[in-house]
Amino acid sequence: MADYRNMWDDLGMDLEKHDLLCEALPDAFHEVYISQQDRPEGMDYYDFVVAEIHGVRPAELVEHRKKGGKVFGTFCVYVPDEIIFAAGAIATGLCGGSQFWVPGGEKVLPANTCPLIKASVGARLDKTCPFFRLADIYIGETTCDGKKKAWEILSEDVPVYVMDLPQMKREKDIAAWTEEIKLFLNKVEEVTGTKVTPEALAENIKLIARKRKALERLYNTRKNSPVPISGRDALLITQIAFYDDPERFSSKTNELCDELDKRIAEGNGVFPADAPRIMITGTPMAIPNWKLHHIVETCGAPVVVEETCTGVRYFENSVDETGTTLDEQIQALAKRYMKVNCACFTPNEGRVDDILRLVKEYKVDGVIDCNLQFCGLYSTESYLVQQALKKAGIPVMHLETDYSEQDSEQIRTRVQAFLEMLGD
Amino acid sequence: MADYRNMWDDLGMDLEKHDLLCEALPDAFHEVYISQQDRPEGMDYYDFVVAEIHGVRPAELVEHRKKGGKVFGTFCVYVPDEIIFAAGAIATGLCGGSQFWVPGGEKVLPANTCPLIKASVGARLDKTCPFFRLADIYIGETTCDGKKKAWEILSEDVPVYVMDLPQMKREKDIAAWTEEIKLFLNKVEEVTGTKVTPEALAENIKLIARKRKALERLYNTRKNSPVPISGRDALLITQIAFYDDPERFSSKTNELCDELDKRIAEGNGVFPADAPRIMITGTPMAIPNWKLHHIVETCGAPVVVEETCTGVRYFENSVDETGTTLDEQIQALAKRYMKVNCACFTPNEGRVDDILRLVKEYKVDGVIDCNLQFCGLYSTESYLVQQALKKAGIPVMHLETDYSEQDSEQIRTRVQAFLEMLGD
Ligand code: SF4
Ligand code: SF4
Ligand code: SF4
Ligand code: SF4
Repeated sequence: MADYRNMWDDLGMDLEKHDLLCEALPDAFHEVYISQQDRPEGMDYYDFVVAEIHGVRPAELVEHRKKGGKVFGTFCVYVPDEIIFAAGAIATGLCGGSQFWVPGGEKVLPANTCPLIKASVGARLDKTCPFFRLADIYIGETTCDGKKKAWEILSEDVPVYVMDLPQMKREKDIAAWTEEIKLFLNKVEEVTGTKVTPEALAENIKLIARKRKALERLYNTRKNSPVPISGRDALLITQIAFYDDPERFSSKTNELCDELDKRIAEGNGVFPADAPRIMITGTPMAIPNWKLHHIVETCGAPVVVEETCTGVRYFENSVDETGTTLDEQIQALAKRYMKVNCACFTPNEGRVDDILRLVKEYKVDGVIDCNLQFCGLYSTESYLVQQALKKAGIPVMHLETDYSEQDSEQIRTRVQAFLEMLGD
Repeated sequence: MADYRNMWDDLGMDLEKHDLLCEALPDAFHEVYISQQDRPEGMDYYDFVVAEIHGVRPAELVEHRKKGGKVFGTFCVYVPDEIIFAAGAIATGLCGGSQFWVPGGEKVLPANTCPLIKASVGARLDKTCPFFRLADIYIGETTCDGKKKAWEILSEDVPVYVMDLPQMKREKDIAAWTEEIKLFLNKVEEVTGTKVTPEALAENIKLIARKRKALERLYNTRKNSPVPISGRDALLITQIAFYDDPERFSSKTNELCDELDKRIAEGNGVFPADAPRIMITGTPMAIPNWKLHHIVETCGAPVVVEETCTGVRYFENSVDETGTTLDEQIQALAKRYMKVNCACFTPNEGRVDDILRLVKEYKVDGVIDCNLQFCGLYSTESYLVQQALKKAGIPVMHLETDYSEQDSEQIRTRVQAFLEMLGD
């Protein structure tokens, strides 16, 4: 890794603590990623991004800020990146996926908080992540109890703007979300000092659409048997989509898909064609949370699709591009975003429909419904998800886990038993 | 207790299981309540209500239904009872406060769910509470993650209507809540088949105002030193307010207050004048959850006020009564309800202001900030509550507990240490 210590120092980071993180990551990455057989060559780009995770992209953001640009940190796929980029700013995902940050979060949050929230707060307060230092403002949302309240604590340390996401999906709620996006646009204009024009918004709706299309193309390759890319690799790519430059990301991902198309044509895969095909559904897996994918795939079964926000929820559904006024464009954005089926809505029947549809589209043999510990939304919704899958005759297992490695062997045993049952 | 077995049977209750509950309650009530010294005579009424808790009031509701009346079950002080009564229906609180119901809830809910939600769901599914059987429809709200998702599971068993409570308190959110109350009024009209007139609504706004005024009068007596009524008794009265007939409740409570006024004039109290005066803030305590009050008061300190939804949040703030059209009345209702400072809002600065104000009004010596286990909202907000109280130099301790008795001794030890510290 190039020497970024000066940059980190300028960003007010805790260098000593950060060194500990930098020491641990390469080993973990090697174990989960580099040790895989037959990886597509196109993964080189993403491997590089991870190797330089706190260097290359942060350096680009520093450059952007030197030129007066702003950086918006986000924590939910409901925050419309299109608006941010349309104002000449950069959006970057900030969800924390490492146990390393959890103790820092626990200093101010109850231990009974989901690890994603604890890690996100800890990464900020412990000053061990350049992205959390770089963001000029954090954009929160009222999705779950833990995040809703964490914004108040974070706002003692960094500017936070919260979008009030409706909790239901009636027509009036879509209208309410349209209103929230308008207010958000005003806020983005205020922070950036840039007026968002319909032209700029149209352009950036297309930019984000290209990113979504690239991911859709990637996921479509996973519908093939044998599957040409591992679930781990697909997850990594999706995680990187949250903070990489969208244009570069799209082009690199399309390049990779060209390679995967060749593999498919040649019948080459990374798992035997008869290995049981697994879907993971549930809470998002923020980088570097590769725990469950690693366990499942080293048990011999490919993860072929994720019904999560670091999976299809991130890229499915497109924004209507026919609007020419800001009002029309914002309405199109609101409609698209309100199609994301998060457990924060009541009811959230669309998610069960999505899961059943994806089982067919990706020829799934078994579903692992997994939520982060203390996520009341997804753990409670699991009852209905399991009920629907059982009714449809689709094998399902439920798991609850956190970022620690303590339960890994126990999960491995349960996953093995599940896979054996699928083989019967 | 009179023989209500036929009624319970008609309500489809599980009589055998219910017998177990009926056996346990009198002992618990005796230990917490009847054993107190010097109780006001006016408590006889509330003691009677508890002794006949599954009999007298349920029998009234059965009568009401026989005449074609409807019963609405509610779980949050944000649901406007005024509308329900204005349609000739009866509102009754359904929050479960007993460990007895928890295992029933855990059959369908994650163990990491707050006991109030588990008990409420268990009371319904286990068929051991007549109120849960009697309600024609449950009114849910989008306050916390656990409840938001529990409605979906409950709705498999009983009609549930959900009100979408905004998660913030801007002008537009008050407008949104006004809209929700309008929709709720439509729903109430549909369920009851009764048109709500401005006259009926005005009358019932006054009815509920009388109940709030009676409680306010009761709580005002607690501002005196020595305090003329125990915190346990005040809590019981407030708990009963959630399901008793509002008119009778108001008149009985005013009678009791007449007696308390005499005590005050005579300088009589139930605790020595120099006992440390305690405020409890946090999550609601649904009947028969008397655990913390019992511990604190048997340690020798009176609880003089509760900043909870089974405390001042239930009755503070009044509805403007000048409106003559439904639109004006509904707006007045929305404004009043949006003044309740629940941790489900972000931010919720008003709650800290309330706590600091109540400390002065009730001459509080120490605050116990207590939340039910797995309540992410109140446990996270506790950080800011403690911060504010410490800044103001007011002693505060934080507790997390559930409905079981397992931690009672540990809590007693901590409370004793806190009280000793206050005495220093
Ligand atoms: S799971 Fe829900 S709250 Fe989390 S990122 Fe996805 S949409 Fe947002
Ligand atoms: S996993 Fe659940 S609790 Fe955690 S941030 Fe996402 S929605 Fe909230
Ligand atoms: S604590 Fe909040 S959610 Fe619970 S009853 Fe009170 S207002 Fe409703
Ligand atoms: S105590 Fe907390 S988790 Fe439980 S019902 Fe109330 S707000 Fe929800």
